Amino acid sequence: MKIALLGFGSVGQGIARVLAERDLGITITALADSKSGIIDPNGISLESVLARKEQTGSCGKTGITAEEIVRTADYDALVEVTPTNVQDGEPALSHIRTALARGKHAVTSNKGPIAIALPQLRALAQGRGVQLRYEATVCGAIPIFHTLEHGLGGNRFLAIRGVMNGTCNYILSRMAAEGLTYDQALMEARQLGYAEADPTYDVRGIDTAIKLVILANSIWGLGARLPDVDVTGIDRVTPEALSLAEKQDCTVRLIGEAIQEPSLLRVSPRILSKDHPLVVYGTLNAITLETDLAGELTFIGKGAGSRETASAVIGDLIFIRDCYVKGP
Amino acid sequence: MKIALLGFGSVGQGIARVLAERDLGITITALADSKSGIIDPNGISLESVLARKEQTGSCGKTGITAEEIVRTADYDALVEVTPTNVQDGEPALSHIRTALARGKHAVTSNKGPIAIALPQLRALAQGRGVQLRYEATVCGAIPIFHTLEHGLGGNRFLAIRGVMNGTCNYILSRMAAEGLTYDQALMEARQLGYAEADPTYDVRGIDTAIKLVILANSIWGLGARLPDVDVTGIDRVTPEALSLAEKQDCTVRLIGEAIQEPSLLRVSPRILSKDHPLVVYGTLNAITLETDLAGELTFIGKGAGSRETASAVIGDLIFIRDCYVKGP
Repeated sequence: MKIALLGFGSVGQGIARVLAERDLGITITALADSKSGIIDPNGISLESVLARKEQTGSCGKTGITAEEIVRTADYDALVEVTPTNVQDGEPALSHIRTALARGKHAVTSNKGPIAIALPQLRALAQGRGVQLRYEATVCGAIPIFHTLEHGLGGNRFLAIRGVMNGTCNYILSRMAAEGLTYDQALMEARQLGYAEADPTYDVRGIDTAIKLVILANSIWGLGARLPDVDVTGIDRVTPEALSLAEKQDCTVRLIGEAIQEPSLLRVSPRILSKDHPLVVYGTLNAITLETDLAGELTFIGKGAGSRETASAVIGDLIFIRDCYVKGP
Repeated sequence: MKIALLGFGSVGQGIARVLAERDLGITITALADSKSGIIDPNGISLESVLARKEQTGSCGKTGITAEEIVRTADYDALVEVTPTNVQDGEPALSHIRTALARGKHAVTSNKGPIAIALPQLRALAQGRGVQLRYEATVCGAIPIFHTLEHGLGGNRFLAIRGVMNGTCNYILSRMAAEGLTYDQALMEARQLGYAEADPTYDVRGIDTAIKLVILANSIWGLGARLPDVDVTGIDRVTPEALSLAEKQDCTVRLIGEAIQEPSLLRVSPRILSKDHPLVVYGTLNAITLETDLAGELTFIGKGAGSRETASAVIGDLIFIRDCYVKGP
């Protein structure tokens, strides 16, 4: 199976490293980062491209662009792993659209295009008989979409609730464990690389809300958008609130919650008993599904990291390889 | 998609009820219970066959046998949900073999044939280009095999550990919560229908060991058998052992554990901290996977029940429908 890879930051390089490590029958025939690109119909040498990126900061030649690769290169699946643009999903959205329209499968870790345009992209993929997969967009290493689609394929989904942002969960875990203030815990998270320089997107609950939109639209075929979610972040949670919860053997977690009937999309800090399945610690993520046949199921795992995200992207690729392209 | 269903006890009836409730594009063209059978190439009426079973105890006519159905009926997938025979897996094993040899997909909830003959059945299915699926054999509603195969497809699996028997977990939960003896808790489990009249198979750890064999053989392509597992049951766990654990904020769980390197297959009662992810309560099941890319993941859900098992069987059927037969 041949793939074109767009994005060669930590996720893109993570994917290349895994493909170099093991024989999965997957070859990269085209690759672009923000400054350069490389096309080789016989398969790009992963060792040399990883070394070149490290030495020069670029993966290939200037002048070869992502647009050109998407439109003209020979590949079975486009793998789009550039950073998320929440405003309009571009340029990733156009790239995915072009690939699907060409009858190519598309796999992405990019929340922007999926949160903004899932119904349209899905219709386009179905019309062309190809797969659009985005396992890496929600809860990193937890294969939630494979589970929803196949493992629990015959079920009706009544509700989904989750801890979907590792930054918030780390901050809340540390505030409760050490009595830190929000600002102290945030500073610690930054020092450890768990929070970005501008943490707004995470701590205000926007990242969780985007993931909730993707989940709800996937499960129920809705066309919900980010403004449809009622969002409260963790930036006003006080050490006093946490110590009060602690006294009742409870704690606080930022929960994204989607309910089918009556319809609800909400992100908010919630007080939960410490033995609640969603009370996970540190940067872990957790998702609970309420289903009509299988009952309640909970999945716990790492929410971020380049190998974890690569795991999700490669799981999507292996599914496409086995079920559509046929592999080695 | 047409299926032939063998077994019309609680699981078989559960599947028929779900197929009657929702349009999944799946039709039952042949059905057999232990005494009778029915074949209808146009699709059996599920409402009438469920009513007939309830009224007469039989689903069809004597003289139509499972053998005949497997060999001659028109179906895309055989669904084998008769009770487990741990000794030689028969007659289910022969039925599955015959169906695969005819180029039919096979889905089963029956641990016997899978624990005994997975490598051979898998080779037969691969040779014929059909699917052999058995999601319902391990941890009921938790779609562990879909997760291993697709969601985490690119990963190497280092270890798998789980609470895989609801009867044992219920007994241990109740002994710890109420200070009951093993015999008192077992009696309570029997009264609630969580333990069979002869609980040996569950409480001695044999059921867990069989599931461990199925998991290990699936993940690592081994040919392990039941005698390869080092098994200790819960029947000698004392209230004193539990109260001692309790004093250290720990408890006891029957854990099935498979490690790749150095190779280990073991079932035994283990002392675990109460915040360990495998400490679930009542009849719940839980599985933790240790992987090289996705890190550690935990899945928690119901381990038994006719709707839960039907969920697993139908998930397998939907996968086959979407990826092999093509659906509605």
